[in-house]
Amino acid sequence: MKQLGDYIRNIADFPQPGIQFKDITPLVRQPDMLRQVTRQLVEPFRQKDITAVAGMEARGFIFGTLCALELDVGFVPLRKPGKLPYDVQSIAYQLEYGTAELEIHNDALAHGDRVLLVDDLIATGGTARASCELIRQLGAEVAGIAFVIELDSLKGREQLRDYEVHSLLHY
Amino acid sequence: MKQLGDYIRNIADFPQPGIQFKDITPLVRQPDMLRQVTRQLVEPFRQKDITAVAGMEARGFIFGTLCALELDVGFVPLRKPGKLPYDVQSIAYQLEYGTAELEIHNDALAHGDRVLLVDDLIATGGTARASCELIRQLGAEVAGIAFVIELDSLKGREQLRDYEVHSLLHY
Repeated sequence: MKQLGDYIRNIADFPQPGIQFKDITPLVRQPDMLRQVTRQLVEPFRQKDITAVAGMEARGFIFGTLCALELDVGFVPLRKPGKLPYDVQSIAYQLEYGTAELEIHNDALAHGDRVLLVDDLIATGGTARASCELIRQLGAEVAGIAFVIELDSLKGREQLRDYEVHSLLHY
Repeated sequence: MKQLGDYIRNIADFPQPGIQFKDITPLVRQPDMLRQVTRQLVEPFRQKDITAVAGMEARGFIFGTLCALELDVGFVPLRKPGKLPYDVQSIAYQLEYGTAELEIHNDALAHGDRVLLVDDLIATGGTARASCELIRQLGAEVAGIAFVIELDSLKGREQLRDYEVHSLLHY
């Protein structure tokens, strides 16, 4: 029987030389795998009174939306600057080279919300950490973080020490 | 009882003066509404032997993924240039001001595939039309197109005359 990892394609030197990119499109192409990944992502958080799932543009939308419905809660998109049309909270954060920015709608979450953050992959953890800070800026709590893939050697998990982090595949 | 349209927020003058932007984030925040929209999007296509759902970055990923699982098929992402890591097919197309480009993985679809294209909104129809051409370049057939919102005055449907187009809300 095929495993989850069989549906992750390794692409050498993308987007730049030396990087082994993990391509999730073969996984997304298989409905049974999508369902299995969704169940596995939310499994440790089913009894955690999650009130919303947040996901980062763009691949986080795929897994985040599915996890939201699996937990019977709504989905909150985190987006790049200028994409969300209503009043936003913004955060700038460091990347390996340069900086990036992420936004959330001001009314997307509130005090009392318990949020599961979902993304396809954690590398250095900068984007996930910034996402957590955005969620907390709105008064909500980060009840957990779930990734399909974790690149262990980049130690992104160390950026997320305050949170319960769950990854399905480790490279 | 609240209707689907009650969860679409109008944002005046976004992203530029004169444009009434339709914000779908309130809808996405409600799991019951997400489920209802998904069922309504795929309804006319349930008996059409769909083999894959394709959706455009980034909001199309939200609705496209849900429609894919509702039809028990896989999801194919259409992305902006440089985002898909494997061999791609590209298409350039006209926007109101300037041009844009869209890509699909070469192995995402093949002859025999019958594709439902899903997006949140149709305005002038340029992106949807380019998406259909990409799908056909891979030898697959566009079996239908579903939008949550159609901006009737922009006549985007005229760009899609060759296809069965289904929209849930008209403005």
